Amino acid sequence: MSTKLSLQSELFTRGVEDIVTREEVERSLKSGRRLRIKLGIDATSPDLHIGHATPLWKIRALQDAGHKAVIILGEFTTRVGDPTGKDATRPVLSETVIKKNIASLKKQLGMILRMDAAHLEIRKNSEWWARMKVGEFFSLLSLVTHARLIEREMFQQRIKHGREIAMTEMLYPILQGYDSVAIKSDMTIIGSDQLFNEHFGRFFQEKFAIPPQTIVSLKILPGLDGGAKMSKSLGNYIALMDTPQDKFGKAMRLIDALIIPYLEVYTDVAGEEIRRVERELGGGGNPRDAKLFFAEALVRRYHGPAIAKKERERFLAVYSGRQQPDEMPEISLREGAWSLVELLVACALAPSKSEARRLVLQKAVEADGITLENLSDPIAVKKGMVIKVGKRKYIRIV
Amino acid sequence: MSTKLSLQSELFTRGVEDIVTREEVERSLKSGRRLRIKLGIDATSPDLHIGHATPLWKIRALQDAGHKAVIILGEFTTRVGDPTGKDATRPVLSETVIKKNIASLKKQLGMILRMDAAHLEIRKNSEWWARMKVGEFFSLLSLVTHARLIEREMFQQRIKHGREIAMTEMLYPILQGYDSVAIKSDMTIIGSDQLFNEHFGRFFQEKFAIPPQTIVSLKILPGLDGGAKMSKSLGNYIALMDTPQDKFGKAMRLIDALIIPYLEVYTDVAGEEIRRVERELGGGGNPRDAKLFFAEALVRRYHGPAIAKKERERFLAVYSGRQQPDEMPEISLREGAWSLVELLVACALAPSKSEARRLVLQKAVEADGITLENLSDPIAVKKGMVIKVGKRKYIRIV
Repeated sequence: MSTKLSLQSELFTRGVEDIVTREEVERSLKSGRRLRIKLGIDATSPDLHIGHATPLWKIRALQDAGHKAVIILGEFTTRVGDPTGKDATRPVLSETVIKKNIASLKKQLGMILRMDAAHLEIRKNSEWWARMKVGEFFSLLSLVTHARLIEREMFQQRIKHGREIAMTEMLYPILQGYDSVAIKSDMTIIGSDQLFNEHFGRFFQEKFAIPPQTIVSLKILPGLDGGAKMSKSLGNYIALMDTPQDKFGKAMRLIDALIIPYLEVYTDVAGEEIRRVERELGGGGNPRDAKLFFAEALVRRYHGPAIAKKERERFLAVYSGRQQPDEMPEISLREGAWSLVELLVACALAPSKSEARRLVLQKAVEADGITLENLSDPIAVKKGMVIKVGKRKYIRIV
Repeated sequence: MSTKLSLQSELFTRGVEDIVTREEVERSLKSGRRLRIKLGIDATSPDLHIGHATPLWKIRALQDAGHKAVIILGEFTTRVGDPTGKDATRPVLSETVIKKNIASLKKQLGMILRMDAAHLEIRKNSEWWARMKVGEFFSLLSLVTHARLIEREMFQQRIKHGREIAMTEMLYPILQGYDSVAIKSDMTIIGSDQLFNEHFGRFFQEKFAIPPQTIVSLKILPGLDGGAKMSKSLGNYIALMDTPQDKFGKAMRLIDALIIPYLEVYTDVAGEEIRRVERELGGGGNPRDAKLFFAEALVRRYHGPAIAKKERERFLAVYSGRQQPDEMPEISLREGAWSLVELLVACALAPSKSEARRLVLQKAVEADGITLENLSDPIAVKKGMVIKVGKRKYIRIV
């Protein structure tokens, strides 16, 4: 029923941080059974970025080998709020926003996964959580001790810094864990920050006499600016819904140190090719060439080779055509996420916020050769970045 | 609609440890409104003892003044398990046992409370908890932080000693607290160990825009032996279902230091009378006389003056009729709860456990003049206690 994959294949090695357990994965792959591969997606945001896509591409490869993706859209759990990686309790979303996000997320799944019923099952976890009574929930709770939940590193950090933990957040791993019982998952592929929660999946499955799911946990990379992991609010991410041009432009803003890890984790470029780029960089090659290689590979993965090639050519034409002056004013600014409007005012490239807004809407603003046209997207400022307004105004951030 | 009571009356002073808040109680008493007085009773055991009865007598007085008792039989919460005063997680009871306990508890309520519908409402908290969905429960949970629940002294003790806290136990105060929302209680009268839980009642009522209940918390006394509070497993309690003879006999085993506090908390003897007994004891009076006074008052409260007088006479006849020898064998034994059979064997009053059992069933065993006839009841051993078997065998515990 399914093609037999090996634990030594790229699927289980490239970008993989840990496997729980290798023996169980090996056994399930050898069995020839069609496995149910769980991935829970939180409906906090309408956008997926290339970080979210990493497990999805692995799952796509499993679909190609005959296995079944079971995507859980966290309608119920989003109302509760996953505290993973959050250093403070976050606001709760309205049901309208959650439903809108879910519709948008489903569309994006189609960019990566096989969407036919034989290869994909989409579930909302409100199916089981909205039906469950408090008594049944307490039966689950009675299996779990306080010590087991509170040992989580993130909670310990919050306690240490005197920050609050809502009881809903504390119980989140129980919800995510029981999801694995509800859909009878055989395997889950996750970012490594979900490992704690998914261990509860194994725990509850064992309590319910279901064979425990295996867990393939993936490396999480820093964002484009080398800081925290990709997030919309930090302006350091590449969204699946970004246009090919935006994807290419953002990829060109990647810091040099991340070119090789990004090639490994975010593209399907063959390993030997990546080693070649790595050798060139090590031998004094121009990082810009390596970045062009990465940007093209990234766009190719989502939009095909023709569009990727076109974007490369467009980028080179625009970027080489517009000569930057050697000397320009410099300004010292805090690195990190900025509102575009505030950045322009801070650089004295616009006399007022309203003028700054007008310039952006006229597409007169560029950062490192990329036109910035979305007022609400933050921009990740870093030293060396060149901001240009109109035809002649330049400033370099130092 | 209700008689106006004063905050200075015995009801709100005698045996009372704390009132939250005095101003609110005063205002509600002055309003003339018929108040709803909450008392939650756990269905862990089929027996109430005179400790449980203390808030019930206060509530009876409130009924007499026109207020309404709302007794919550903890059908749902008993399945969860109140961790109050427990240093380890306790086993969960079956539904059959809980139902049997509830039937028995209802009968005992009738020994104290007015049972007519105008003065009493009996509710099972499964009414609202069995209906509630997990989503609604999470709305409650989102109001509560981890810090607020874990600050509870008992949990801190468990953490310190490396003992487990089941998550069901941790959430127990949320259940007990929300009960106050469900029944819209105006006041609750509780043993002081329930204060933490009932503060959650006020908390949730405020969140649900219901005027918060006031809390009258009562002193908790040590058991008959002066050790931990009354409990069946320690053999240091007087049950409501004990016969008048047993009540009298157990009362006579009370340690001297507790005579005055027991008169205060467990009887309705007038304050001046108690002061008189206290003066007599202070002036070298015989504690046995004070204990006879207490025992008669206790039996009178539950069974009326005629039966109380009869029990006093019976006790004196039996006790004076049977002269103890001045000299008798002595044995040094651990104080505290003993199985009757093991005690007899340890004292060499029976050659074997089966012989010990036979002696008890023949009513041949006495402790301090009280016949011990129930094999399964533990006995609280203390220094000075005289055990008698048959007509001639005596032993004193030292």
